[in-house]
Amino acid sequence: MRHFLSTEDWTRGELQALIDQARVYRDAPFSNVLQNKSIALVFFNRSLRTRASFDIGAKQLGAHALVLDAAGTWPIEVLDGAVMDGDAEEHVKEAAKVLSRYADIIAIRAFPKFENWALEKQDPLITAFAKYADVPIINMETIVHPCQELAMMMAAQDNLGATDGKKFLLTWTYHPKPLNTAVANSALLVASKFGFDVTLLCPTPDYGLDDHYMSAATENAAAQGGSLDVTHDIDTAYAGADFVYAKSWGALPFYGNWKAEKPIRDSYKHFIVDEDKMAETNDAWFSHCLPMRRNIKATDGVADSPRSLIIDEAENRLHVQKALMTHLALQVGA
Amino acid sequence: MRHFLSTEDWTRGELQALIDQARVYRDAPFSNVLQNKSIALVFFNRSLRTRASFDIGAKQLGAHALVLDAAGTWPIEVLDGAVMDGDAEEHVKEAAKVLSRYADIIAIRAFPKFENWALEKQDPLITAFAKYADVPIINMETIVHPCQELAMMMAAQDNLGATDGKKFLLTWTYHPKPLNTAVANSALLVASKFGFDVTLLCPTPDYGLDDHYMSAATENAAAQGGSLDVTHDIDTAYAGADFVYAKSWGALPFYGNWKAEKPIRDSYKHFIVDEDKMAETNDAWFSHCLPMRRNIKATDGVADSPRSLIIDEAENRLHVQKALMTHLALQVGA
Amino acid sequence: MRHFLSTEDWTRGELQALIDQARVYRDAPFSNVLQNKSIALVFFNRSLRTRASFDIGAKQLGAHALVLDAAGTWPIEVLDGAVMDGDAEEHVKEAAKVLSRYADIIAIRAFPKFENWALEKQDPLITAFAKYADVPIINMETIVHPCQELAMMMAAQDNLGATDGKKFLLTWTYHPKPLNTAVANSALLVASKFGFDVTLLCPTPDYGLDDHYMSAATENAAAQGGSLDVTHDIDTAYAGADFVYAKSWGALPFYGNWKAEKPIRDSYKHFIVDEDKMAETNDAWFSHCLPMRRNIKATDGVADSPRSLIIDEAENRLHVQKALMTHLALQVGA
Repeated sequence: MRHFLSTEDWTRGELQALIDQARVYRDAPFSNVLQNKSIALVFFNRSLRTRASFDIGAKQLGAHALVLDAAGTWPIEVLDGAVMDGDAEEHVKEAAKVLSRYADIIAIRAFPKFENWALEKQDPLITAFAKYADVPIINMETIVHPCQELAMMMAAQDNLGATDGKKFLLTWTYHPKPLNTAVANSALLVASKFGFDVTLLCPTPDYGLDDHYMSAATENAAAQGGSLDVTHDIDTAYAGADFVYAKSWGALPFYGNWKAEKPIRDSYKHFIVDEDKMAETNDAWFSHCLPMRRNIKATDGVADSPRSLIIDEAENRLHVQKALMTHLALQVGA
Repeated sequence: MRHFLSTEDWTRGELQALIDQARVYRDAPFSNVLQNKSIALVFFNRSLRTRASFDIGAKQLGAHALVLDAAGTWPIEVLDGAVMDGDAEEHVKEAAKVLSRYADIIAIRAFPKFENWALEKQDPLITAFAKYADVPIINMETIVHPCQELAMMMAAQDNLGATDGKKFLLTWTYHPKPLNTAVANSALLVASKFGFDVTLLCPTPDYGLDDHYMSAATENAAAQGGSLDVTHDIDTAYAGADFVYAKSWGALPFYGNWKAEKPIRDSYKHFIVDEDKMAETNDAWFSHCLPMRRNIKATDGVADSPRSLIIDEAENRLHVQKALMTHLALQVGA
Repeated sequence: MRHFLSTEDWTRGELQALIDQARVYRDAPFSNVLQNKSIALVFFNRSLRTRASFDIGAKQLGAHALVLDAAGTWPIEVLDGAVMDGDAEEHVKEAAKVLSRYADIIAIRAFPKFENWALEKQDPLITAFAKYADVPIINMETIVHPCQELAMMMAAQDNLGATDGKKFLLTWTYHPKPLNTAVANSALLVASKFGFDVTLLCPTPDYGLDDHYMSAATENAAAQGGSLDVTHDIDTAYAGADFVYAKSWGALPFYGNWKAEKPIRDSYKHFIVDEDKMAETNDAWFSHCLPMRRNIKATDGVADSPRSLIIDEAENRLHVQKALMTHLALQVGA
């Protein structure tokens, strides 16, 4: 039995097969291939696209999505051997095993708590769910966002064709809050796995991503004949880019100490993706995972331009997740 | 493509066709006419009837309802060109366009904020959804409540037969909080459009409704051969009424300044619909949109009498909304 | 028309028939026996298993579950004749009658408020729903938890065979909060109805259960040839037990005065179910309704042992509730 926790555990070929199946579903959305199957969607954080696309996607395949919100269920303990005298009412052991008796797939959204990166980079909740569940687990965003990776790659391929050797720019952008690195980690992982020459643009080394993802992306690049570079120079980064992907995140050295990071972050508002920067690219496509603060992360001109793929990428969530649910529920080709 | 934002955009004949189809569905509730269709129900406010009747109604037609609550999704910006450095994480542009990729209809409940009527009477959120969505939008109550209008008219016709020339009384009633004028606006619009002689009873001119709805109802009355009158005299209002519809709302001149309005409103508790007042009518039918504070807006005696249509009107929500979803999803006869 | 408010209203034979049907559904989960039926699940409190198992169970029978949370609907008044000038916006009369027009069954979870036991032991909310609804009501846990009773008995029979004359121990355990007596009341009711020799172990007479349930269980025992004993001695209680069921609750004499009870309860942490205690039994099966605080109510060793039925009992919720929904919606054999 296989989980979908991170694309790190999946080969390029396997991911491409999911994207290919997603295109089949885009053309022919409705079937009963997952008749009598149920998927439990467990949300510890907000969601629009993920919730809507999994729910409607399951229905389009004849399956049923059960939506559970953290506010409606019990606070969960993840540590083995815990003496549960705190806030948690339910151990993940029981939550995972009980849901496995009811549903055929369990999908989890659980953002980090932004308190202790050394702990949170272990992704303890979804890791525990995967350990105890008897059915496949799908990551709906924790410290990576692998469903978004598939949706982005589908949009990239639809517009660029083969991505090997094309230039992928992941640019940090400003945001008033210190956000999760999940989508940034994921963008590095998938772009490098699909042979892009990847550039990470961020204001300073403090805004670099965790070594784990940098190493994984470097290995991917080596295996696929691509490259991974980091720069802090905006002009260098944009020059010749074929695909510009924007995301904001808080600086990891300040993790849990965000007040100190705030004035630093505030000084980098000029990393916004705007028409001038896009003009330096190779007529690049632009995308972002949504939600996106307009005129903070990208200008209206960029977001609304014919080269913007933000809505297509969001639509692709529906298609790739249908491919993923089918694959995991039927465990074909795994 | 057509939205259902307000009955102002729909002719009497079109609305009658929806009510007629609702009666067909009342007799034969189950079909697959909307197989493979999905409707996204987006709730920015509480709901019992709307949520339940849309969800179950969609299912009865073979469709699927996706329920989204504001608390589970992202705070939304509606202004074009906004620099999104405040609380909003998502622009309505993306929310509307992405949901349009997943669902066939989007329904929105978004009450006004009770702060600034000049702004809120523009109904900015649903207007923006309608501007950017690529699928039909249904109003599940904003500053009007057109689904309730259909349900009320269906109940009125079921019990009065033809409504032309019958006397419709919309009476203001007390409520401890300053409520939305939506249902009151809507009652005027639909009663006047269906040829009633309409009387609006309210304590003082300050409790009158917005000029926009008074003008629209006056035009409707002129076109249909009915009338619209305003009175502050309870006896005059009830005399000879065929249909009594109760609703409470806050006085618009005090909009956003509700503390000043509170003692004024508190002095009009005697506007409650009671057996004595009903005795002055032409054995009138009574109704209300629900929820209704018993013994505040109407006495138990009125609410529980055989002339009370409150449960029938609520049931009709199911039928009329099924007719509406079918009409919009299939865009037949539009 | 019949409700499922408490097993007190159902005979042993009727309950056994539900369990037997649950086993049929365990072997053959999928059908369309409830096609076109809808069940409204109304949650005034949190839930994992109840929400998931009713929702997925309904779907597996071709029915549709509508999930309503108190936070998304209107505050409800239960008193007849109330002048509704407080927080409540909706009277249960309307809520029950309107939902009856949309759905074929209404299920309610409404824990007591832990303020006034004399009032709350009347179970006012679900009692009012049952009074006004025109469709069957299912209790999803109020001051009893009859669905859990069926699930527990199904697990007990699956592992013990006939339960008459077997020794059932209901043991109070510690919990940092004063919990509901519902599952404890229910365990007494069902174990006595199925002929167990029942022992209630609790620290002191203050931790005894309400006389109503003690009397009902005593009557059950007399009718079924079993017994009901209360003890405060741990060794006596565990000796020879065949089935150990754990639950924590607050002491009723301190109801609404929980600060005074807290230090007393804190002194009984040694009531935890552990391997030493289980060694005194007749190789007993262990179970608990979940969620369960590990190493507070039972040790990991007990919870994870091959004699632990906690996951099986939770799974049985799915099966017994499907049997119950079928029975009530079709009203066969009632």
